[in-house]
Amino acid sequence: MSVRHALIVLAHPDPQSFNAALAHAAARALTDLGARVSWSDLYAMGFGAVAGRGDILDAPAEGPFNLAREQGRAHAAGTLAPDIRAEQAKLAEADFVLFQFPLWWFGMPAILKGWVDRVLTLGFAYGLGRWWNEGPMRDKRAMLSITTGSPAGAYAPDGRNGDIERILWPIEAGVLALCGFTVLPAVVAYGAPWMTDEERRDHIDRLCQRLRALEATPARFFHPLSDFGDDMRLKPDVVPRTPGQHRP
Amino acid sequence: MSVRHALIVLAHPDPQSFNAALAHAAARALTDLGARVSWSDLYAMGFGAVAGRGDILDAPAEGPFNLAREQGRAHAAGTLAPDIRAEQAKLAEADFVLFQFPLWWFGMPAILKGWVDRVLTLGFAYGLGRWWNEGPMRDKRAMLSITTGSPAGAYAPDGRNGDIERILWPIEAGVLALCGFTVLPAVVAYGAPWMTDEERRDHIDRLCQRLRALEATPARFFHPLSDFGDDMRLKPDVVPRTPGQHRP
Repeated sequence: MSVRHALIVLAHPDPQSFNAALAHAAARALTDLGARVSWSDLYAMGFGAVAGRGDILDAPAEGPFNLAREQGRAHAAGTLAPDIRAEQAKLAEADFVLFQFPLWWFGMPAILKGWVDRVLTLGFAYGLGRWWNEGPMRDKRAMLSITTGSPAGAYAPDGRNGDIERILWPIEAGVLALCGFTVLPAVVAYGAPWMTDEERRDHIDRLCQRLRALEATPARFFHPLSDFGDDMRLKPDVVPRTPGQHRP
Repeated sequence: MSVRHALIVLAHPDPQSFNAALAHAAARALTDLGARVSWSDLYAMGFGAVAGRGDILDAPAEGPFNLAREQGRAHAAGTLAPDIRAEQAKLAEADFVLFQFPLWWFGMPAILKGWVDRVLTLGFAYGLGRWWNEGPMRDKRAMLSITTGSPAGAYAPDGRNGDIERILWPIEAGVLALCGFTVLPAVVAYGAPWMTDEERRDHIDRLCQRLRALEATPARFFHPLSDFGDDMRLKPDVVPRTPGQHRP
């Protein structure tokens, strides 16, 4: 199924950066494929990164505050802050989400982690029992496009930084697959600060080619909920198939 | 070597939360052990989470902006923002750092990720070639104390969320070990929202007991730089010993 409506989420402080160039090239490629493209340029928007009482219009000023519970209540009541509702509306429309960011400290820049913390609320992005392959995002695809400072060797399975698949597990499994997204393999620009202009152009082409071939790109595998027992561990007859799960 | 000066970094929006209770109990236990205790309660401080030009007092308002490079330059020039310098001063004094936070989306709350992005600058927390076992933090110990929503089974090696050691790899390896910290095993309160008051008290005791027994707690192993070749991969004769690295 081709992309009809894409959302690009960009997290980089410099509008002239390689990350920004990748996001803009992706937008053009998706537009050329006939998709509508929405845009969340988090730095340009000055997107608030810190989840808390401010996210809930009718939050009590004091007393216990359980973020997930308050988010779920506010989502149901329509009292989430307007910037959160705007992002949720863009997500609801999209059938493909591209996250473009530099890998900082083996993870997302805080502004993007804050987008995850604040926008993917209980009730909207997951619900009690409605998650993983049964999650609300299960008709959408998502993909990471990232840049790294260290070269590819450092992210090999036996590399100094550890296997890139394991580094991305908390994002690809713990954010995307958990909400139900079909996760397409990440496109990684290794050693981005040291690339020549030609290497950057080649990498931009590689990302665009991937976007044109999304239908032919096998999704990453995550075990469905039915593979797990009541103890939340793989049933004895299930063979582990992900980089995040293994037999003890 | 006993703790002389501890820094506690707390990231939770609710000052009445279990996370806050754990941080305060840890502070008391460390004080009882004779340590001085410094404190970074990130929500209470309203700590800025978003790394960018604002971190650099003399940053050019426009033009290319490479965060790591600008951070390194500003650190050398003494032109990092005052809130960053204040955190660096606390870190410089501390010989033990405790990070207390709820695991949100398999990672740190954005306010804490922002502390990492902003405070651990080039020149201060790592330098070209000065990292991992040769990093500037190599005389300090660090430890995570976290709470999770899902129960322990979900974080077993074959659990639905994947092995907790792999989930924590980006933080324990990619942040702490990379800067040179000796990393003590994380203390995890699984299924915190569903704990009884008694279970919470027991867990607080467990954390305090760990703090009293730090000297007897074996640190987590990370391969030293000398285990890697010029290709940044483990040398052929080195046996992988971490959950993040394995032979392909």
